Amino acid sequence: MKILLVGASGTLGQAVRTVLEKQHEVVTASRSSGEYTVDLTDPSSVEVLYRAVGPVDAVACTAGAVPFRPFTDLTLDDFRAGVADKLLGQVELVRRGISAVAPGGSFTLVTGVLAQDPIRTGAVASTVNGALESFVRSAAIELPKAQRINAVSPTVLTESLSSYGEFFPGFEAVSAERAALGYVKSIDGAQTGQVYRVG
Amino acid sequence: MKILLVGASGTLGQAVRTVLEKQHEVVTASRSSGEYTVDLTDPSSVEVLYRAVGPVDAVACTAGAVPFRPFTDLTLDDFRAGVADKLLGQVELVRRGISAVAPGGSFTLVTGVLAQDPIRTGAVASTVNGALESFVRSAAIELPKAQRINAVSPTVLTESLSSYGEFFPGFEAVSAERAALGYVKSIDGAQTGQVYRVG
Ligand SMILES: NC(=O)c1ccc[n+]([C@@H]2O[C@H](COP(=O)([O-])OP(=O)(O)OC[C@H]3O[C@@H](n4cnc5c(N)ncnc54)[C@H](OP(=O)(O)O)[C@@H]3O)[C@@H](O)[C@H]2O)c1
Ligand SMILES: NC(=O)c1ccc[n+]([C@@H]2O[C@H](COP(=O)([O-])OP(=O)(O)OC[C@H]3O[C@@H](n4cnc5c(N)ncnc54)[C@H](OP(=O)(O)O)[C@@H]3O)[C@@H](O)[C@H]2O)c1
Repeated sequence: MKILLVGASGTLGQAVRTVLEKQHEVVTASRSSGEYTVDLTDPSSVEVLYRAVGPVDAVACTAGAVPFRPFTDLTLDDFRAGVADKLLGQVELVRRGISAVAPGGSFTLVTGVLAQDPIRTGAVASTVNGALESFVRSAAIELPKAQRINAVSPTVLTESLSSYGEFFPGFEAVSAERAALGYVKSIDGAQTGQVYRVG
Repeated sequence: MKILLVGASGTLGQAVRTVLEKQHEVVTASRSSGEYTVDLTDPSSVEVLYRAVGPVDAVACTAGAVPFRPFTDLTLDDFRAGVADKLLGQVELVRRGISAVAPGGSFTLVTGVLAQDPIRTGAVASTVNGALESFVRSAAIELPKAQRINAVSPTVLTESLSSYGEFFPGFEAVSAERAALGYVKSIDGAQTGQVYRVG
């Protein structure tokens, strides 16, 4: 399969790339590295990406940023920023990818544990992750050409503990390598509308 | 209690108003009827609303619109519109209401069954409802002054079947009166971070 991976240079993305490359051709993209340049917050750049990459069998995303701030410090613009990046950026990757993805091909998005299990400063992340879970369930029943869509929802990654582990008290971390298995299940499996919780 | 109810003139809102008025003083608002005027899509009008209404014990919302369209016809602007109205409109009602709501007071938002149980044309509704469920769970752990927050998630209302029942094949409808009980549980109870599924 030819797989487009957006966010391949990140903590999760590197692990996803490594496991997918064992069996597939992986085409990488992000804002500042990879074979193609894309900024998920800029819908026209998503369009340009698909035109440049051409037909693919699967699209996987390990990108998407959200601001973290104590709830009473969060502004409307913080919510808008998280929505525009991790939520609508991935929605656009799906919407504009429909014509590029092969029949029976798949989209695999990234969400995260905060949808169910909130932490202090994480309200935007929770909101966006919850949205993505329900987006995936709903898109799955209407995607054309038997295309499939799933999301991977990791808990905090072991590799990220040194950066922000203190915000996840009592959370048991999972390795990026284990989280990456969710992408394999989505891409090489046959399920759709699923959220793979890892951790 | 003094309760601000946004969307009091709607199908769900009328039932919520009726049941709350048995025990409480209900102050009503919407774009075109009620004691106060507010447009949830206009953050400054939410600010003006709270300044006009003054201190309250609870805020309840039965407003929030989203576009319905087949998935492949949905535009980015459709997602943005649903997010700006039902999602960020209610987020603003909470964010800007913190200083108006009494210690121990509550916010009760509206979401809906499509977060879990998608229908054709409903991807924006699902996305926004899923976001709201996780928003409520996350805000609950950080709201100041022991303020509480819950959401009510009704299935399709009996009163709405004649308008769009055909889009909900096999869904068992629930009366607006029963859905309104979720607001009573949230406002008169002591729970927080809950999503009350009705139906
Ligand atoms: N790390 C964790 O513990 C954890 C746990 C659960 C969920 N997640 C979720 O997993 C995702 C990836 O997390 P991570 O820790 O791997 O992040 P990361 O290390 O910061 O990597 C992010 C990747 O996405 C790319 N990227 C960032 N913004 C982009 C944009 N606007 N358009 C296109 N590409 C963009 C980055 O490359 P460029 O900078 O070159 O664009 C990079 O390749 C996030 O959505 C995060 O919420 C992470
Ligand atoms: N009906 C159902 O079967 C059902 C089932 C599950 C969930 N829900 C959810 O429940 C909520 C209410 O549904 P409904 O059927 O009762 O709707 P509705 O009958 O159309 O009533 C909507 C109410 O909200 C007000 N409103 C609309 N837009 C507003 C805005 N931008 N700012 C402030 N007020 C606004 C309306 O008054 P004005 O026009 O004067 O502003 C009206 O009072 C919606 O979020 C819907 O998704 C409904």
